[in-house]
Amino acid sequence: MEIGFYKDQFVDINENVVPIQERGHQFGDGVYEVIRVYNGKPFLLNEHLDRLVKSAEAIYLELPYPPERIYEIISEGLEKSGLTEAEIYMQITRGIAPRAHLFPTTPSVMSMTIKNARVVDKKKRIDGVTVTLMEDERWKNCYIKSLNLLPNVIAKQKAATNGHEEAIFIRDGFITEGSSSNIFIVKNGTLITTPATNFILHGITRAAVIKLASKCNIPFEERKFDREFLNEADEAFITSTSAEILPISKIDDISLSPNRPITNLLYNEYCGLYK
Amino acid sequence: MEIGFYKDQFVDINENVVPIQERGHQFGDGVYEVIRVYNGKPFLLNEHLDRLVKSAEAIYLELPYPPERIYEIISEGLEKSGLTEAEIYMQITRGIAPRAHLFPTTPSVMSMTIKNARVVDKKKRIDGVTVTLMEDERWKNCYIKSLNLLPNVIAKQKAATNGHEEAIFIRDGFITEGSSSNIFIVKNGTLITTPATNFILHGITRAAVIKLASKCNIPFEERKFDREFLNEADEAFITSTSAEILPISKIDDISLSPNRPITNLLYNEYCGLYK
Repeated sequence: MEIGFYKDQFVDINENVVPIQERGHQFGDGVYEVIRVYNGKPFLLNEHLDRLVKSAEAIYLELPYPPERIYEIISEGLEKSGLTEAEIYMQITRGIAPRAHLFPTTPSVMSMTIKNARVVDKKKRIDGVTVTLMEDERWKNCYIKSLNLLPNVIAKQKAATNGHEEAIFIRDGFITEGSSSNIFIVKNGTLITTPATNFILHGITRAAVIKLASKCNIPFEERKFDREFLNEADEAFITSTSAEILPISKIDDISLSPNRPITNLLYNEYCGLYK
Repeated sequence: MEIGFYKDQFVDINENVVPIQERGHQFGDGVYEVIRVYNGKPFLLNEHLDRLVKSAEAIYLELPYPPERIYEIISEGLEKSGLTEAEIYMQITRGIAPRAHLFPTTPSVMSMTIKNARVVDKKKRIDGVTVTLMEDERWKNCYIKSLNLLPNVIAKQKAATNGHEEAIFIRDGFITEGSSSNIFIVKNGTLITTPATNFILHGITRAAVIKLASKCNIPFEERKFDREFLNEADEAFITSTSAEILPISKIDDISLSPNRPITNLLYNEYCGLYK
């Protein structure tokens, strides 16, 4: 059963639990995480909660519970839901208060949903997905996993409207990341991804892939690259909690080779982490 | 009585009416307006609703009602509230749907609150307020009055923590606007404000001030200006629906003259619009 949690208690996922004057609803004043549950076990949970703490600190937001209590809530929620292949969505906002920009003194509030996992279509895994390049119009602190997702939403929708799975952003001539994913390429046997500056989310799956590359002795570089370099990649893939490692078959009009030895190796290794 | 409105009906302002999976709550996927009510009459209502339509179009959001119906709801709400000096807050989000970046097919939803107006302290009106300059880290479409207000919230709070009323943003060396206001300066008798590009909100109060300047034969220029030019202003003020026209007394460590003939003239004219 899919379930929700709001302000200290489990609720029906569709229940009306949020008042209008909630900092999430009126300002997007909060941070979030999405955690995949495989076989009943939240995957890379420590990493996600560490990042949640960092995002919260970056916006001067105090968590409503210490991480240990969040672990308990997740564990209780998973048990209540009975789901084993699940997706946990959690967000912390600056709470409930009469609308004004200044931080309220009211306590922060956690929302959570536990739902069936979205699983990527097998055909997409095998064929790869197409992506389209788009100007990165977002703010300068994309490393914060904040609720201010309107530019990402619009970019993803524009991509989909044009038949693409994902929008890949370019800022000042360099590729940053996808609207809800990080991007990697392979060139002459080296795995390359955008450096973890303030301009990209420091993805948990991204970090896992970097570790796997090291384990598999795949040469790896974090460095800036432009559209031309991306178009000439031997392989390219996006990463995210829900997409895992998903090969890119085409960047706008440029087709990539269907031979993806390093992408496939990393994907198999990644699945091995939770199987 | 302060009241709320959510999804086709009037509600208690503190009632829990929003589910967790609302596009406002999870993505800031929506737009808003704040309208001042003077003596029972919503001020510049047409202008606000025109801008709401423009903001909605910019994010490909269909309004849940035609503007005529929104007029009716506002009018009904004001009557129910019994308030005559009020502030109407309204937001439209992309509605209620299981969380995913892509636009849902569900209808958009309007939230509204009608509350007592926040009135600026008389001392601030007379003495002016201090402001602090801050880097503009927001996205590139600040002309859209969207719910993605986290950078504004953080800037406003940082300003307040340092004893300032408002944060004034600088992008690429040029002053853009405040965290919740536009900015004007007077230099050698000419009124100057930042051009209405995508980098600033096209303020309703800003537009009213420009009209008043024309009426009063005050020379006016829309043009980019930098920190040095601001610091050397003869007068400076911020504008917004709730601040109206509020003089700036100090920009960080730089004090401005307490003589403000043009600011005072414009403020008197502005009050005349609704009195």
